Amino acid sequence: MAAVLCPGSFDPPTNGHIDVIERAAKHFDQVVVAVIANPSKEPLFSLDQRKDLLVDVLSHLDNIEIASFDGLLVDFARTRGISVIVKGLRAVSDFEYELQMAQMNSALLPGLDTMFVTAKPNWAFLSSSLVKQVARYGGAVDGLVPPLVGKALEEAYRVSPPTEHT
Amino acid sequence: MAAVLCPGSFDPPTNGHIDVIERAAKHFDQVVVAVIANPSKEPLFSLDQRKDLLVDVLSHLDNIEIASFDGLLVDFARTRGISVIVKGLRAVSDFEYELQMAQMNSALLPGLDTMFVTAKPNWAFLSSSLVKQVARYGGAVDGLVPPLVGKALEEAYRVSPPTEHT
Amino acid sequence: MAAVLCPGSFDPPTNGHIDVIERAAKHFDQVVVAVIANPSKEPLFSLDQRKDLLVDVLSHLDNIEIASFDGLLVDFARTRGISVIVKGLRAVSDFEYELQMAQMNSALLPGLDTMFVTAKPNWAFLSSSLVKQVARYGGAVDGLVPPLVGKALEEAYRVSPPTEHT
Amino acid sequence: MAAVLCPGSFDPPTNGHIDVIERAAKHFDQVVVAVIANPSKEPLFSLDQRKDLLVDVLSHLDNIEIASFDGLLVDFARTRGISVIVKGLRAVSDFEYELQMAQMNSALLPGLDTMFVTAKPNWAFLSSSLVKQVARYGGAVDGLVPPLVGKALEEAYRVSPPTEHT
Amino acid sequence: MAAVLCPGSFDPPTNGHIDVIERAAKHFDQVVVAVIANPSKEPLFSLDQRKDLLVDVLSHLDNIEIASFDGLLVDFARTRGISVIVKGLRAVSDFEYELQMAQMNSALLPGLDTMFVTAKPNWAFLSSSLVKQVARYGGAVDGLVPPLVGKALEEAYRVSPPTEHT
Amino acid sequence: MAAVLCPGSFDPPTNGHIDVIERAAKHFDQVVVAVIANPSKEPLFSLDQRKDLLVDVLSHLDNIEIASFDGLLVDFARTRGISVIVKGLRAVSDFEYELQMAQMNSALLPGLDTMFVTAKPNWAFLSSSLVKQVARYGGAVDGLVPPLVGKALEEAYRVSPPTEHT
Repeated sequence: MAAVLCPGSFDPPTNGHIDVIERAAKHFDQVVVAVIANPSKEPLFSLDQRKDLLVDVLSHLDNIEIASFDGLLVDFARTRGISVIVKGLRAVSDFEYELQMAQMNSALLPGLDTMFVTAKPNWAFLSSSLVKQVARYGGAVDGLVPPLVGKALEEAYRVSPPTEHT
Repeated sequence: MAAVLCPGSFDPPTNGHIDVIERAAKHFDQVVVAVIANPSKEPLFSLDQRKDLLVDVLSHLDNIEIASFDGLLVDFARTRGISVIVKGLRAVSDFEYELQMAQMNSALLPGLDTMFVTAKPNWAFLSSSLVKQVARYGGAVDGLVPPLVGKALEEAYRVSPPTEHT
Repeated sequence: MAAVLCPGSFDPPTNGHIDVIERAAKHFDQVVVAVIANPSKEPLFSLDQRKDLLVDVLSHLDNIEIASFDGLLVDFARTRGISVIVKGLRAVSDFEYELQMAQMNSALLPGLDTMFVTAKPNWAFLSSSLVKQVARYGGAVDGLVPPLVGKALEEAYRVSPPTEHT
Repeated sequence: MAAVLCPGSFDPPTNGHIDVIERAAKHFDQVVVAVIANPSKEPLFSLDQRKDLLVDVLSHLDNIEIASFDGLLVDFARTRGISVIVKGLRAVSDFEYELQMAQMNSALLPGLDTMFVTAKPNWAFLSSSLVKQVARYGGAVDGLVPPLVGKALEEAYRVSPPTEHT
Repeated sequence: MAAVLCPGSFDPPTNGHIDVIERAAKHFDQVVVAVIANPSKEPLFSLDQRKDLLVDVLSHLDNIEIASFDGLLVDFARTRGISVIVKGLRAVSDFEYELQMAQMNSALLPGLDTMFVTAKPNWAFLSSSLVKQVARYGGAVDGLVPPLVGKALEEAYRVSPPTEHT
Repeated sequence: MAAVLCPGSFDPPTNGHIDVIERAAKHFDQVVVAVIANPSKEPLFSLDQRKDLLVDVLSHLDNIEIASFDGLLVDFARTRGISVIVKGLRAVSDFEYELQMAQMNSALLPGLDTMFVTAKPNWAFLSSSLVKQVARYGGAVDGLVPPLVGKALEEAYRVSPPTEHT
C-alpha cells in the first residue's frame, strides 16, 4: 500500500495546505500528515493544538493519519517505511529551497522521493506566516483558512487595531 | 489502479527521462509514457523511432506502457481516465513553464494534477536538445543517454568535426 | 492628464490582458492600448481583427483608446507624449524579460517608466500562445478568454480532434 | 485625485527608495510615503528619525506626504481611501515576495492594486540592510544614500575598523 | 600561462560584452575571444565582420586573441589546451541556461570550468538581440555599443521609421 | 601574481566549499581562504576551529592560505591587494543574493570583481546549515563533508535520536 508523507509546521494549517493534502489523499492510498514538533521558529500554536486543528479540518478525508516527529524527516520516513514525500509548490524561492531539501533527503535516504504538487493559483500567495501577520492585526482571514482555524487565530491574538502615527 | 502519465517528446530519451520514469514506476501502479507525436520543433527521430527507443531503454520496468498522442494532453488523459501527470523538474525556467502548463491543464480538466519529481542532480543539466547539439558535432554522449540511444544519435548525424576559423 | 500605454500583440486578447487593462483604466485617466502591428511571430489574427476584438471586449471602459504601432514602443510613446507603460506580470521568466525591456526602454527614452501590475492569480498561467494551443485542438477556452474571442478562435482553427497513435 | 502609497521601513532611506518615490510622484497626483512604525527587525533609526530623514531627502518633491502606520498596510490604505501601492522591484527573490504580498493585500482589500516600478539599474543591488552593514564597518556609503543619511549612519555607528585575525 | 575563453556570437559585440572581456583580460594572462562561427540564429553580421568589429573595439587590450570556432566549445577548448571559460551573467533565465551549459561542458570535458563575472548594472538589460531590434527601427544605440558598432548597425539596416496605424 | 579571495563562514567547511576552492586553486596562482570571523548567525565552531578544519581539509593544495577577517570583505581585499573574489554558485536565491553582494562590493571598491564558479551538481543542494541540521539529529553526513569534519560535528552535537509524538 502506497503511503506518502505530507510534512510541515502547520502553524496553523491554511487552505493551501488542505488543498495539497486533499490532492495527495486522492492519488495515494494513505497520507501521513507529519507535523514538525519543534519548528525552528517558535510556533504560535502548541503541537497538540496544531494536530487537533488538522484532525478537524481534514475530517472529510478517511485515508489520513495525523502524526508528528522530532528530528530528521528522513528518519521518520525510514521508521514508517514511507518512500514518498508530497509537498506543495508556490513560488520560485520556495522551489529552490524545496529542491535543495529534496536532494538532501534523497542523499540521506536513497530511494526517498519528493513529489511536488501545485495548489490552486488562489493559494499561491498564501503562507502560515502571512496569515498570522494578518490575524495579529485583526485582519479578516476567512477565505484563507478554514473557519475553525480563523477562530483559533482570533483567540490566540489580542486584537490590536492598527494606529497611524502622524 | 493508479495510473499516471509521463508525457514528453523524447527526441531522444535521456538518462534524465529514464530516471524520472523509473521513479514514477516505483511509486504508482502503472506508468503511461505518452510520446508527443508532433512536437512544435521538427523532431530528429520519427515517432516510431522514439517509441522503439523508449521500449528498449525501459524494458527493465514491467508496469510501463509506451503510447503516443496528438493534440491536447488533457484530452489524452481524459480518454485514458488518468488523473496524474508526472514530470521531472530541472531548473527555474523549466519550473515556471511547467507550473504554467500544470495550471492550464488543471483549468482545462479539473481534477487533473501534475506531480513534479526531482531527478538526480547529475541530470539537472541534461536535455534532449543539449544532447543532440553534442552528438551533432561528434561529442561523446555516453553517460548522458543509454548506449542504444547513443548509437541511434551517431547514425542520425553525420559526424562533422569542429573546425577552427583563424 | 495622465495617459498610459498598455502594449501587446493581443493575438488574441485574454482575460489576463483585460484584467490588466481594467486596472490601468481604474488608476489612470486614459489608457492607450497599443497593438504591436507586426509581432515577431506571425500572428493568427490580422491587425484589424485584433483591434476589433479589443474594441469589443473593452467596450465597458470609457477611458480607452485602441491604437497600433510599428517599430519601437519608445518612438510610439514619444509621439503620443506618454511617459508610463503599464504591463501585467506573471511569472519569473516573464519578469526577467519585462525588466530587461523596461530598462532598455528607459535607456532609449529617459523619463519613460514601466509600471507592472499583478493580475488575478487565476490568470497567472494564461498566455495567448497557450490559449491558441488549446483552441487549435478544440479544447474549451471559455473562462480563459471572453466568449467573443472564443468564437473568433473557433472560426480561426479547424477543429482537429486529438488522435492517439498506439 | 489619484493618491498612491509608497510603504517601507526606510531604515534608512536609500537612493533606491528615493528613485522609486520620485517616479511615483511624477506619475501620480499625490504620494503618501507610509513608514512602517514597527518593522519586524528592530530598526536602527527611531520612527521619528526615519520620518525626519524622509522629509529632508524628499524636500524637492511637493506632492509628498510622510506618514506612518502600525498594523496592516491594507487597513492604512482603507483609512486613507487609497487604492494603489507603488513599490520598487529589484531582483527575483524580491519579486516573489512582493508578488505574494500584492496578492495577499488584494485578497484582503479587493480593489487595492500594487504597481511595481523598476529603479535605475545602479540601485538594483542596493538595500537598507546592505547599506547599514557597510556603514557599521566604516565603509563609504556616499553614492548609495543622500549625504544627510550618510551622516546619520555615521553618528549611529561607532566606527569599528575591520581587523584581520591571522 | 593561464588563458581563458570568452565565447559568444557577438552579433554584434555590445558594451556588455566588452565589459566582461575587459574584466577577463585584467585577471587572466590571455583571453581568447571565441566567436561562434555559425550560431543557431542566422547572424546579421558575417563571421568576418564580427571578428573585425571585435578586433577594433578590443584594440586597447593587448592580451587578447580573436578566434572563431565551429562545433562544440569543449572541442575548441581541448584543442587550445584551455581549461577556463569566462562568461558574463545578467539575469535569472540567463543564469539557468548558463549553469546548464557549464555543467554540460564540464561533463563533456572534465576539468573545464566556467567562471561567471558580473558586468556593470548598466549593462544588465543589454543583449545583442535587443540592440538589433532597436537599431532596426532607427533607435539610438549609442551608449549601448561602441560608435563603430553603431555605424555598422546603421549600415546593416535600412532605417525604417515606425508608423502608427490608427 | 594573481591571488584571489574565497570568503565564507565555513561553519563547517563542506565538500561543496572544498570543490570551489580546489577549482580556484587550479586556475589562480594563490587562493586566500578568508574566514568571516563573526558571521551574523552565532557559529557552531569557533574561529580557530573553523580555520583548523580548513587547514586540514585543504592540506592537499599548496597555493592556499587560510586567513580570517572582521568587518567588510572589501576592506580585507584592499589590505591584501586582491582584486578577485571567487565564489561558488548553487541555486537561484543564492545567485540573486550573491549578485547583489558582488555589485555592492564592486561599488565600494571599484576594480574588485567577483567570479562565480559552479561546483559539481552533487553539491548543488549542500550548505553548512543543512549539514548541521542533519548532524544535530545524528544523521549520516559522510559524503557531504570530509571525515574529519564529520567527526567534529559528532563531537559538537549530542546525538539526539528523533522521537515520534503520536
